[in-house]
Amino acid sequence: MSGTNRFMDEALAEARKAAERDEVPIGAVVVLDGHIIGRAGNITRATCDVTAHAEMAAIRMACEALGQERLPGADLYVTLEPCTMCAAAISFARIRRLYYGARDPKGGAVESGVRFYDQPTCHHAPDVYSGLSETTAAELLVDFFKGKREEPR
Amino acid sequence: MSGTNRFMDEALAEARKAAERDEVPIGAVVVLDGHIIGRAGNITRATCDVTAHAEMAAIRMACEALGQERLPGADLYVTLEPCTMCAAAISFARIRRLYYGARDPKGGAVESGVRFYDQPTCHHAPDVYSGLSETTAAELLVDFFKGKREEPR
Repeated sequence: MSGTNRFMDEALAEARKAAERDEVPIGAVVVLDGHIIGRAGNITRATCDVTAHAEMAAIRMACEALGQERLPGADLYVTLEPCTMCAAAISFARIRRLYYGARDPKGGAVESGVRFYDQPTCHHAPDVYSGLSETTAAELLVDFFKGKREEPR
Repeated sequence: MSGTNRFMDEALAEARKAAERDEVPIGAVVVLDGHIIGRAGNITRATCDVTAHAEMAAIRMACEALGQERLPGADLYVTLEPCTMCAAAISFARIRRLYYGARDPKGGAVESGVRFYDQPTCHHAPDVYSGLSETTAAELLVDFFKGKREEPR
């Protein structure tokens, strides 16, 4: 699992960079043939783009890098269980394997919420591996929102 | 309903322009205070961006135009029932009212599929109005895919 952890570490690095930009600390990388071809943290605030979750930004970067709409054979590592929007985008992009860190019972859509990959309107489901570095991934989020609550208003 | 139809006509115009670009003919407009602030057709092929469905592109344009992440008070008109990705993005953007044309039992996520707005992990649901210009919207898609099947290989 060392390869797996190396890429999740890169996703965690993107999450930390997001926190430094005052964005919700979630990070993602897209990997093809052992190389990172897309990487991003959440960037909704800086770009005024509500759709710019880490997974979406990393997928868009990877698609642009390859000059193609879909990413068959690519794997995505993300620090938090993807939301409904991102879970569907991961399916549309034909991601092969999805690795994620912490669960998100409130907003997730893989093992929580709509469980998109189990639904008849999901036409491609990645293989899913969860719980990688989940404590670190969750702590980043907890610390970020704790800091927010303690900010002077 | 003349105002409603005027904006759906604009969404249909975007769908037709998409077909001319050889993209799946779906179009969307975002309307705030009676003015169109975002408009797009599907543009996944031209941009190599699997997330660039009409609704996503129109929402991104509107967010950029206003310099904000969310669009409270804005309405979205789209020719086809939004998919799972787009339904969630519409929720995240805090769209007030969603008007759509044709149903999409295979890929939709409003009255079909995951019915995202009825789920506990949906934290904002727009008011939904469906069936506007649905015949025209559906015919655009049927004609497009019929044309595809008849293309020489």
